[in-house]
Amino acid sequence: MDLVDGILKADSRSMARALSIIESGGHQAQEILKGIFSKTGRGVVVGVTGPPGSGKSTLVDKLAQAYRKQSKSVGIVAVDPTSPFTGGAILADRIRMQNLYNDEGVFIRSMATRGHLGGLAWATRDAVSVLDAAGKEMILVETVGVGQDEIEVVRLADVSVVLLVPGMGDELQALKAGIMEIADVFVINKADRPQVERFQQELESVLSLCVRPDNWKPLVLKTIATEDQGVLEVIEGIASYTQFRASHPEFAESRRYETEEDILALLKERLLTRVLEQEGVRDKVRVATQAVRARKMDPYTAVEQIVEQLHKPGVAGPAR
Amino acid sequence: MDLVDGILKADSRSMARALSIIESGGHQAQEILKGIFSKTGRGVVVGVTGPPGSGKSTLVDKLAQAYRKQSKSVGIVAVDPTSPFTGGAILADRIRMQNLYNDEGVFIRSMATRGHLGGLAWATRDAVSVLDAAGKEMILVETVGVGQDEIEVVRLADVSVVLLVPGMGDELQALKAGIMEIADVFVINKADRPQVERFQQELESVLSLCVRPDNWKPLVLKTIATEDQGVLEVIEGIASYTQFRASHPEFAESRRYETEEDILALLKERLLTRVLEQEGVRDKVRVATQAVRARKMDPYTAVEQIVEQLHKPGVAGPAR
Repeated sequence: MDLVDGILKADSRSMARALSIIESGGHQAQEILKGIFSKTGRGVVVGVTGPPGSGKSTLVDKLAQAYRKQSKSVGIVAVDPTSPFTGGAILADRIRMQNLYNDEGVFIRSMATRGHLGGLAWATRDAVSVLDAAGKEMILVETVGVGQDEIEVVRLADVSVVLLVPGMGDELQALKAGIMEIADVFVINKADRPQVERFQQELESVLSLCVRPDNWKPLVLKTIATEDQGVLEVIEGIASYTQFRASHPEFAESRRYETEEDILALLKERLLTRVLEQEGVRDKVRVATQAVRARKMDPYTAVEQIVEQLHKPGVAGPAR
Repeated sequence: MDLVDGILKADSRSMARALSIIESGGHQAQEILKGIFSKTGRGVVVGVTGPPGSGKSTLVDKLAQAYRKQSKSVGIVAVDPTSPFTGGAILADRIRMQNLYNDEGVFIRSMATRGHLGGLAWATRDAVSVLDAAGKEMILVETVGVGQDEIEVVRLADVSVVLLVPGMGDELQALKAGIMEIADVFVINKADRPQVERFQQELESVLSLCVRPDNWKPLVLKTIATEDQGVLEVIEGIASYTQFRASHPEFAESRRYETEEDILALLKERLLTRVLEQEGVRDKVRVATQAVRARKMDPYTAVEQIVEQLHKPGVAGPAR
């Protein structure tokens, strides 16, 4: 397959085309992944997440520039939420990233899709796999927001960096907890803000209560990303966690495509696709929806009835 | 069923027990929903979301108090993210809400679960249905964060309120877009902050580019929730959108449990459960996971092979 060859040769146009295919979902995306999968698992995937306004994009840019100075090739995937109305992309590739574009060693792409079998997290994984197979040494995945979707995206990273900013309100306490347990490196950005010391103490005291299964003690670093302050320390932090993982193979499973949960998530999507291909099932779903809408039936009973009918031999069996 | 009777009589202990059952997932939750479903669809469900630190909890409290002054019964569901490690709740019922607790007309509960068949959004729906069946007239659903999960939670509301705060950084522009199209009422909270006028103009200019299928023009209101300023205007805004929906039945479908997409999401979960009950399938998933982990096989091919084997008559058929 031409496209697979192009990816393996790190051809930018092939990579861009592959990522467009992945974004729009469908069978061809799976063919690409099948073609490149055995060449993946070499790059280091760094997830960068944190609340809105914490400066993720700026830090990712600065990290990319610093890695380039170390002659490492870099891929960036910016994961954006998708509009539930349009299903379309919200953010185009960011304008501020264009100053990196002339550099052949950097490939940048935003992803905004739920069309992909398995949802946004899987589309992101496939995108990461493309960059990985193309030989990108450092793959930075930046997420917008701090919801469950973002946590799932962070899960696929080898190293996860969580940005925080001093004084982001009471709810930070709650938000922190969700991401606290999956952050390998904390970065307190905008460290020129007031009360940064107090914030750092609070963060460290919360962390001190938390023991991770691998006994890694998450780092707490400070940056002023806009002024390039502290960026090299973040790079060192990422490297030290990467080394820690390498030296502790018992905890060093790559997080990509590798859990049973991942396989189950894909299996679920595939089962639905298969059932909907059976004759009459789409009609049954339509009728069930109407019954639920009229409150003649609850949704659980409605779905149970559809499933019961699939049980019949000749219906649940192969379509042809 | 005792519990169903208790819910229909608005007994607080029955409601609390039902919500605990829903939170932990499982079959009993579905039984409850089956029992109460025909009595749902009466209350007005108001979703309140927005970025961290925008003051959602405060606004929800003030709205609840204002509705109580109008002698309306109120239910509050605060939707929290779940820790991917522990699977447990992050936030307990909030302390600040306890001053409402002595009022029998208010029922407050936080939800933090992904154990429920269909995930967090469905657990929230079921919780809303319990409050609805118990006769709560105003049901306020507050979400933490602005990810896809939260957007799905907002989708179940009859009226969605999105909070914004002036000067929350550049990323607000991006975040706004995700929620822009599903907000019926925008509230600019902390309206005593500098640059609120400019922020409002920006917001309105973005909104002016957007035409909704129902032609509703989202309201833009300003509050200082901590000082109870503007809260009644929000209540009027919620009422005016509720009236708009009622007078435009062509767009007035309740958003709860009513789309084909909802039924498909449940069907998918049910299909997976059914397949995993078949003998040997869990083992196959385990073997597939190991093959993928060793990069001997890509995940799509692995899942395809599991599904292929289900096709065989006697395997895909009923287990007994």
